Amino acid sequence: MSELNEQRGVNFPKGFRSAGVYCGIKKPGLLDLALIVSDREASVAGTFTQNRVQAAPVRWSKRVVAGGRARAIIANSGNANCLTGEQGERDAQRMATMVAERLGCPPEQVIVASTGVTGVPLPMNAIEAGIPAAFARLSDGDDRTTADAILTTDTFPKRACLELETPDGIVRIGAIAKGAGMIAPNMATMLAFITSDAHIEPAPLQACLTEVVQQTFNCITVDGDTSTNDMVILLANGASGTTLRGHSLERFQQGLYQVCAYLAKRIVRDGEGATRLFEVRVEGARSPQEARQVARTIAESLLVKTALHGGDPNWGRIIAAAGRSGVPIEPNRMRLTMQEVVVFEHGQPIPFDEPSLAQKLQAEEVLLVLELGQGEASARFWSCDLTAEYVKINSAYRT
Amino acid sequence: MSELNEQRGVNFPKGFRSAGVYCGIKKPGLLDLALIVSDREASVAGTFTQNRVQAAPVRWSKRVVAGGRARAIIANSGNANCLTGEQGERDAQRMATMVAERLGCPPEQVIVASTGVTGVPLPMNAIEAGIPAAFARLSDGDDRTTADAILTTDTFPKRACLELETPDGIVRIGAIAKGAGMIAPNMATMLAFITSDAHIEPAPLQACLTEVVQQTFNCITVDGDTSTNDMVILLANGASGTTLRGHSLERFQQGLYQVCAYLAKRIVRDGEGATRLFEVRVEGARSPQEARQVARTIAESLLVKTALHGGDPNWGRIIAAAGRSGVPIEPNRMRLTMQEVVVFEHGQPIPFDEPSLAQKLQAEEVLLVLELGQGEASARFWSCDLTAEYVKINSAYRT
Repeated sequence: MSELNEQRGVNFPKGFRSAGVYCGIKKPGLLDLALIVSDREASVAGTFTQNRVQAAPVRWSKRVVAGGRARAIIANSGNANCLTGEQGERDAQRMATMVAERLGCPPEQVIVASTGVTGVPLPMNAIEAGIPAAFARLSDGDDRTTADAILTTDTFPKRACLELETPDGIVRIGAIAKGAGMIAPNMATMLAFITSDAHIEPAPLQACLTEVVQQTFNCITVDGDTSTNDMVILLANGASGTTLRGHSLERFQQGLYQVCAYLAKRIVRDGEGATRLFEVRVEGARSPQEARQVARTIAESLLVKTALHGGDPNWGRIIAAAGRSGVPIEPNRMRLTMQEVVVFEHGQPIPFDEPSLAQKLQAEEVLLVLELGQGEASARFWSCDLTAEYVKINSAYRT
Repeated sequence: MSELNEQRGVNFPKGFRSAGVYCGIKKPGLLDLALIVSDREASVAGTFTQNRVQAAPVRWSKRVVAGGRARAIIANSGNANCLTGEQGERDAQRMATMVAERLGCPPEQVIVASTGVTGVPLPMNAIEAGIPAAFARLSDGDDRTTADAILTTDTFPKRACLELETPDGIVRIGAIAKGAGMIAPNMATMLAFITSDAHIEPAPLQACLTEVVQQTFNCITVDGDTSTNDMVILLANGASGTTLRGHSLERFQQGLYQVCAYLAKRIVRDGEGATRLFEVRVEGARSPQEARQVARTIAESLLVKTALHGGDPNWGRIIAAAGRSGVPIEPNRMRLTMQEVVVFEHGQPIPFDEPSLAQKLQAEEVLLVLELGQGEASARFWSCDLTAEYVKINSAYRT
């Protein structure tokens, strides 16, 4: 049994190979095309951006997931193939077809993903040269280049792997992810590709993924902007020979949660310009929805994000954000702690040692707990501080 | 008849006097206490923050507005008297009482407003010394010090005045406002005090104000954070001898719109760290609510705000923001123009001269028009760019 670690990604489970290559979309030296192949047909599950504007590869890959079976994932970075009209639809299909021809499978079993600038047609010459090159490099060894090839403004690659002992036998989960900006709940400018050698049918696989994504990738925010291209894809190819049911499937879902929570936090930690991560826990809400709405409003507040950047225990901004969340909170019932220091209770400020708390707020991870005193429900959001560097990254002219 | 101008504020209508003094809440040299007095009982109307957390002066002033009549406004800056528990309630009432005693009116006819840091008790010694000092300085002359005394992070005072010819006679409107950060629709960290020498009963006065605020102060955003202290107060004391009804009242409402729209735009233009203002117009929506929701989502998007800071015609971010607004928009029906240049139409990017548009985006005011092609409704929002300076201002430790 292995602890969760980031030494390997999608190649960790049996029966998967991958490659990352440079095909010419980004600047030379940066990898921009990733290919992940299962050596047999795998069950596939996916969750996709809830933005009404959806890129061509999102529309294509939704159809693949609807079919329940997949053999491969082809993903490019540097260009989102979004808002590119009918040409974009043809280009996404062409990517799938080129991969399918080499695998001898239907194009409808190839997931396509793109991330990068919107509104610019894909440079198909580059991609058409890149796909054979990626096949030539396919390996079941180190998958660092695969993880690198899906990055955009990320400053580090994101991998995670885990070996799970279940009542039915041992299975493995591996994953890579990208995301740094345009991160909001309900999917963001993020991709995550997860592989497993467990044997699980598409329907329970999708149920597992949907529940885990709701508690992990859908609980992070960098800037509240939801991208047009996000997807989380999970392939389970059965190469371990272990079929998961009942308790084993629950164990798998716990492992999947570990992997996704780890990657979700890594994405926030790599938030554009971010210097620290903070966790907002809302407890004592009347419903999970209300808890989530309050947590999200605090996590997205620019005033909270900038105060935390400055290490300022400006707790009034947290209470004020809760107050505008749309949830009928009652200040007189609320209790707020920052790094385990109580600062507000029953509608009254609680005196605290400011220099000491300011010091605690300099930590890489900061915990805010807001108890609403209205019920039993809770929620948790991960966010990052807002810095001048975020502005610099996002106001730079694209070209 | 005068054109709208900013030479005078609340002292412009007949029968009003005001003063701004330093009482000791802010650093020496900065004015922090404003007093506005009507020489007779005035009709009063008001709109208040919709944050569930409301400062003590907001709760007090709501009761004053409910009574329909007021004689004065007392407002301090530098301390919001918010999240200050029962002491805060007593302090707000004490401010009203001190003013009322000097005017010989009930405390329930004195509006109280506070703006500044939250969670810290008001320094009542300073305010108790400041109120007599403000009375000693009351003047119907220049009201620049009154406008200065309500500012916090603002970089310039905000005044507006207008003389209106109506079928029933000439009346005047004057106003001062503050606001630079924590600005969101549904009131923000903003105060606006408006005076008029028209005679209008409280009920129609409130109707006028509610409608105008919805189209002006409630259509601006700097950072999407709604404050706990906002209010817009309108006093009409009848000193002109002109009673407004019917068409004259409509004319008054038009004038009030002019004054409020002017001040709302001035607040956005003074947004913390902002270098330019942008107007988002959404047309062709199925309902005004949907138009407003799309416009607001675009106006608040950090990616749109940073792109406009960089003068980057990154129109994909605008379309993507519309896509996540929650409104069922249809990209294939949409048309987007930036500074009157069409960049997207019928789901397809429209080629345009990038250097030329980038140049146009350097203007102090930028216009974005998004046509949804789904109906006849429209909405308009004013916002500003997001800069590294905003982060600097809001991450600085308070002390």
